[in-house]
Amino acid sequence: MIEAALVYARDHRRQYLAALVELLRIPSVSMEPEHGADMEDAADWLAEYLKRMGMTRVEMLPTQGFPVVYGEWLGAGEDAPTLLAYGHYDVQPVDPVEEWLTPPFEPTIRGDDIFCRGASDDKGQLFAVLAAVEAYLRAAGRLPVNVKIMLEGEEELSSPHMAAFIERHHQQLAADAILICDEAVLDPQTPLVMYGVRGSLYLEIDVRGPAQDLHSGTFGGAVDNPFNVLVRLLASLQDGRSRRVRIPGFYERVRPLDDAERALLAKVPVDDKAARHLAGVGVLAGEDGYTTVERVTVRPTLEIHGMPGGFTGPGKKTVIPARASAKVSMRLVPDQNPQEIRHLFEEHLRTMAPPTVDLTIRTLGASRPVVMDYRAVEIQAISRALEQGFGAPPVYFRGGGSLPIVADFQERFGVPIALIGFGMPDDNIHAPNEKYHLPNFYRGIETVIHYISILSEM
Amino acid sequence: MIEAALVYARDHRRQYLAALVELLRIPSVSMEPEHGADMEDAADWLAEYLKRMGMTRVEMLPTQGFPVVYGEWLGAGEDAPTLLAYGHYDVQPVDPVEEWLTPPFEPTIRGDDIFCRGASDDKGQLFAVLAAVEAYLRAAGRLPVNVKIMLEGEEELSSPHMAAFIERHHQQLAADAILICDEAVLDPQTPLVMYGVRGSLYLEIDVRGPAQDLHSGTFGGAVDNPFNVLVRLLASLQDGRSRRVRIPGFYERVRPLDDAERALLAKVPVDDKAARHLAGVGVLAGEDGYTTVERVTVRPTLEIHGMPGGFTGPGKKTVIPARASAKVSMRLVPDQNPQEIRHLFEEHLRTMAPPTVDLTIRTLGASRPVVMDYRAVEIQAISRALEQGFGAPPVYFRGGGSLPIVADFQERFGVPIALIGFGMPDDNIHAPNEKYHLPNFYRGIETVIHYISILSEM
Repeated sequence: MIEAALVYARDHRRQYLAALVELLRIPSVSMEPEHGADMEDAADWLAEYLKRMGMTRVEMLPTQGFPVVYGEWLGAGEDAPTLLAYGHYDVQPVDPVEEWLTPPFEPTIRGDDIFCRGASDDKGQLFAVLAAVEAYLRAAGRLPVNVKIMLEGEEELSSPHMAAFIERHHQQLAADAILICDEAVLDPQTPLVMYGVRGSLYLEIDVRGPAQDLHSGTFGGAVDNPFNVLVRLLASLQDGRSRRVRIPGFYERVRPLDDAERALLAKVPVDDKAARHLAGVGVLAGEDGYTTVERVTVRPTLEIHGMPGGFTGPGKKTVIPARASAKVSMRLVPDQNPQEIRHLFEEHLRTMAPPTVDLTIRTLGASRPVVMDYRAVEIQAISRALEQGFGAPPVYFRGGGSLPIVADFQERFGVPIALIGFGMPDDNIHAPNEKYHLPNFYRGIETVIHYISILSEM
Repeated sequence: MIEAALVYARDHRRQYLAALVELLRIPSVSMEPEHGADMEDAADWLAEYLKRMGMTRVEMLPTQGFPVVYGEWLGAGEDAPTLLAYGHYDVQPVDPVEEWLTPPFEPTIRGDDIFCRGASDDKGQLFAVLAAVEAYLRAAGRLPVNVKIMLEGEEELSSPHMAAFIERHHQQLAADAILICDEAVLDPQTPLVMYGVRGSLYLEIDVRGPAQDLHSGTFGGAVDNPFNVLVRLLASLQDGRSRRVRIPGFYERVRPLDDAERALLAKVPVDDKAARHLAGVGVLAGEDGYTTVERVTVRPTLEIHGMPGGFTGPGKKTVIPARASAKVSMRLVPDQNPQEIRHLFEEHLRTMAPPTVDLTIRTLGASRPVVMDYRAVEIQAISRALEQGFGAPPVYFRGGGSLPIVADFQERFGVPIALIGFGMPDDNIHAPNEKYHLPNFYRGIETVIHYISILSEM
């Protein structure tokens, strides 16, 4: 049965690619209200595809935001295991659009890569799951396990409605194994198993000073400039030498790295030379006392993403702006709690802020960090499937990014989650010129075919 | 002769206002290339007006940038003194345009004020000089002094070509007295004589890190984020408590404030309550050990105007930007030298910057600070004229803003300059909703008429 599915998948790569191109063309940017109709188009396209490929029940399940596209095939019977596969059909905004070499929603193949916003994150990956299931159904007429597929439309918004959605639909979603393909391999010969993800907390800080913009010739020296204040507040958040976050209490709940896990992570074949190349930097820098791999997996961090306000056009304008803002996010690790960190952050800034300004902090997103037992049988199953699909055993890694759904699933269903991906570290996700490595697409399809087969024997 | 001019000016206020409205409508923003034709229109309009009002020689004098509009009337003869009056016809950009209550280039009268970009800075003021000269010529057929008028088009660009222009045309411009109307009164009952101006140095700082934007989930913790570095660099420039600039050597050449000048500035009737109201702040803040008036006149300062780069749109994007920038300016006082301060600034930042980033500093503008002897006869002449025009003796003040032309004139001609203005402290120059107080416009015209008369008797 698996052989027929693998042969079918190999014989239909061209058709799969053509379908993926159709999906990629739909600019389903969940963050931008003007793309509301495109979000609907993407959901409709996927529901249609799920029906055509043979899912027996396909539904558009509403949330308070964009709907979840759901499809199931339960023909393997009650005694067979049930797999729940998750993906997301929304994509990041495309700014700065002028840095794209080809239009962001015009899928363009150069070499072995297809360039398009969403190609790697996550349309090209969720579609590998659809293609694998379709291959089984077309080649063998059935699957050896029951399959449920749920495709979210708000992952790039930090999945604000998923916890409630999973709670409401937990009977419909119930499964023995959960598969999420939204990550990356290290290189095509080195697949990865993610046994955890960092959480995140994204804040916007507003510092308001004068009632309106002032001229620095008239008032410069007599009033606190909101930007001068804001840079002092922000500089206080991180030590310039150790790169440690200086918010009191920030590290209190961080689990220390034990020797076994340190050894496991030391096997990740990314040396600093490779990391410099991937990041496009001449010199790496991070928290004292940790390796590069540890810094991006098991350690928390803090980043400033942009500072709106004031005068940013060409030339010069001597304005003391009424307001200065900053977009700041933190990556969190077990057992840091986003709500608690939010509180510590605000407390710290309020202690620092002078009485000359009004400080406001808004939460734009939050997700909990997760770590799973990398020795669990469910993790070993996906590990074997990756070895079959990519021809090499995977290395174990914790994801540096945040995937709120992982915490939501884990808290509801209590099973370790197979969290893998077919992207590449240099796919430019969330940046201009996002791409997806097509050989990984085809290996990904085969990996999922193997995983379904291994699950059926568990 | 002066009486006839004063009567003429009072009888023709409506005509003067109508002409000013025409001039204000022309969006002569020197900083924005798309307004090149508007700059030409403004210069043409002024040349035409100078001819119509009776100037005997009107020329468009080229510079390497926008031309100087020049007009002269030398009919008073070689024995009479010659006055050179300066103004500028370029205006600031209008951003943020959405904060204007009425369109920025649609002159709108509300109460006693006319709202328009350039109304106060400087079109409404330069036009008071034209109106005064016109009143003399129309009412008496002649002036008691020779008059030269030069109107610059690049003041808002820091007058990059004026030093060379004055040098090239110094014989044509030679005068016994120089009048610049580009400042403000404290209130309509309290005119000001400016016996100095602060200089300025406007820099743009670029911090470049990764070759391209990175995803903070993948790389956060392993590379230095240019914004994290930049806020540390900027925070190092000013002490958060004393508000003193922390660049080593910054204060070295600052002239200490002597008791006589401290007493003179103490007469400026601006208490902290009034200053808070003017600035629209609840709490003032500035350099330890100085009064509010001293802080905005005789002390240098440093302001951050905006920080381009990264993600500044609505919502959240978890990007580590390849580049972060800041627009920073300093107000300088005698005897600080912009070139030297530029050097100290860069030296300080280079010492602070980690090897993970590339630091670039560009100069966007620079002007030297000036202070004149407030006891000089030329300063006393303008003081009497202001007392006649506004009905109250002026207070003495040093301008907090920068007017590069003052240094250029002083270095070439060596005479104290009559530096006054008819604006108000809350005119929102360089900010949305710039306005000009019309009663000041009319008092300004009469002030210049009196000044011409006083000059003729000197």
